[in-house]
Amino acid sequence: MAKLYVVGFGPGGKEDMTFRAAQAIEAAQVVMGYTTYINMLKDIFPDKNYMSTPMKQEAQRCRMALLEAQKGRDVAMVSSGDSGIYGMAGIILQMAQAMDADVEIQVIPGVTAASAAAAILGAPLMHDFAVISLSDLMTPLDKIMKRVECAAQGDFVICLYNPKSKKRTEYIAMAAQIVAGIQGPDIPAGIVRNAGRPDESHEITTAGQLKDAQIDMFSIVILGNSQTYVKDGKMITPRGYTLDEGIVPDKKD
Amino acid sequence: MAKLYVVGFGPGGKEDMTFRAAQAIEAAQVVMGYTTYINMLKDIFPDKNYMSTPMKQEAQRCRMALLEAQKGRDVAMVSSGDSGIYGMAGIILQMAQAMDADVEIQVIPGVTAASAAAAILGAPLMHDFAVISLSDLMTPLDKIMKRVECAAQGDFVICLYNPKSKKRTEYIAMAAQIVAGIQGPDIPAGIVRNAGRPDESHEITTAGQLKDAQIDMFSIVILGNSQTYVKDGKMITPRGYTLDEGIVPDKKD
Repeated sequence: MAKLYVVGFGPGGKEDMTFRAAQAIEAAQVVMGYTTYINMLKDIFPDKNYMSTPMKQEAQRCRMALLEAQKGRDVAMVSSGDSGIYGMAGIILQMAQAMDADVEIQVIPGVTAASAAAAILGAPLMHDFAVISLSDLMTPLDKIMKRVECAAQGDFVICLYNPKSKKRTEYIAMAAQIVAGIQGPDIPAGIVRNAGRPDESHEITTAGQLKDAQIDMFSIVILGNSQTYVKDGKMITPRGYTLDEGIVPDKKD
Repeated sequence: MAKLYVVGFGPGGKEDMTFRAAQAIEAAQVVMGYTTYINMLKDIFPDKNYMSTPMKQEAQRCRMALLEAQKGRDVAMVSSGDSGIYGMAGIILQMAQAMDADVEIQVIPGVTAASAAAAILGAPLMHDFAVISLSDLMTPLDKIMKRVECAAQGDFVICLYNPKSKKRTEYIAMAAQIVAGIQGPDIPAGIVRNAGRPDESHEITTAGQLKDAQIDMFSIVILGNSQTYVKDGKMITPRGYTLDEGIVPDKKD
């Protein structure tokens, strides 16, 4: 039986890919994915048989991948980050079930964008956090903003995926305003653009000032919780360790 | 200037480690960490100079790592999963600032346990999710349970780290009861034990039945949101794709 690997290849470069992800891509007879991701992989694995489809053709791409595997060819369906977080793992499994496909599917996790962005900003995800996509392509806007509100009410660190696109420019300011209203406008906010890619950049601002930051569809935004602070250019959410002794509960917590 | 790499080496085996994590461990003159993690790495990198301290000596371990680096030796401070999610990145940065240490610190992200567990269960994290640790060593219990409640109110998928220890056996049942009260007792719940390690196992149950599941300190629990379903042994949170066309909003969403 042919294999279909659903591979998360991490932020972009080979160095942040897992060995298992690289091995699956190398072993696959067909590597399939969204055009942008395929172009990133061509530099790392130049000699593969690639097939790509544009965005918004996810279902068709999954059907193609399963049909290839049913012909007996091992396929790697690739996404950046983790294949299981806003990636292709779900729709592949759904499509395989709908097609009753006789294919062995293996989900290979990767380093998700939240982890990559956090490492660049310092250590903002040391405590409980919520991950929210601001894309309303598949979720109504009021549900997204309700999640932002619930996350701020719970004093979660909040990691926003898809904070902005060409059409969606105002949602990040709406989300920042909700968080600032609950947690105060001085809550730290970090922005990482193109995490783990050659043109990576980042800045640290506040929830109140986030509307003026440079943010695009390749950015991740991390809003701190009530404990998060910025020092020496690093955004840190302490976990409650004291530096003198072992562990004691953080008094502020 | 010596380097201090804060390395997340993923679930456990070399195959789920990134190339950058492996390179940092190979390059380091000293590899330091919690005893359990060091024992996992000794099988993969047998010839390193290891130093370990037991749990609850995190601050001392960081000071040792920084002192080694100040002597001019490159150090890898290791955690399983992602070093930036409940890992060592935060306390290392805090300690370096407190010591005014002249050391170059690089945080190297890894595959976090949520990603590893999700890949084993199917695709439960395809939509917005919250990550919560049930350890009350550094967070008051009422704050933890408030976060569980806020996450369920926001219809987040909920990923629970540290669901149980020898002393803390009841918190997972409390959390499950809160979620069941808001989302209903039939919400799917997945448990992965020892994700990515040789003795890995998993089961899928419901929020209402979670109190009877086999859960320990090496487990991750993922509670679904209102859309999550189980089919053919896979736990899936659909993202709203339809299988016939491209993308349309999920009608249930």
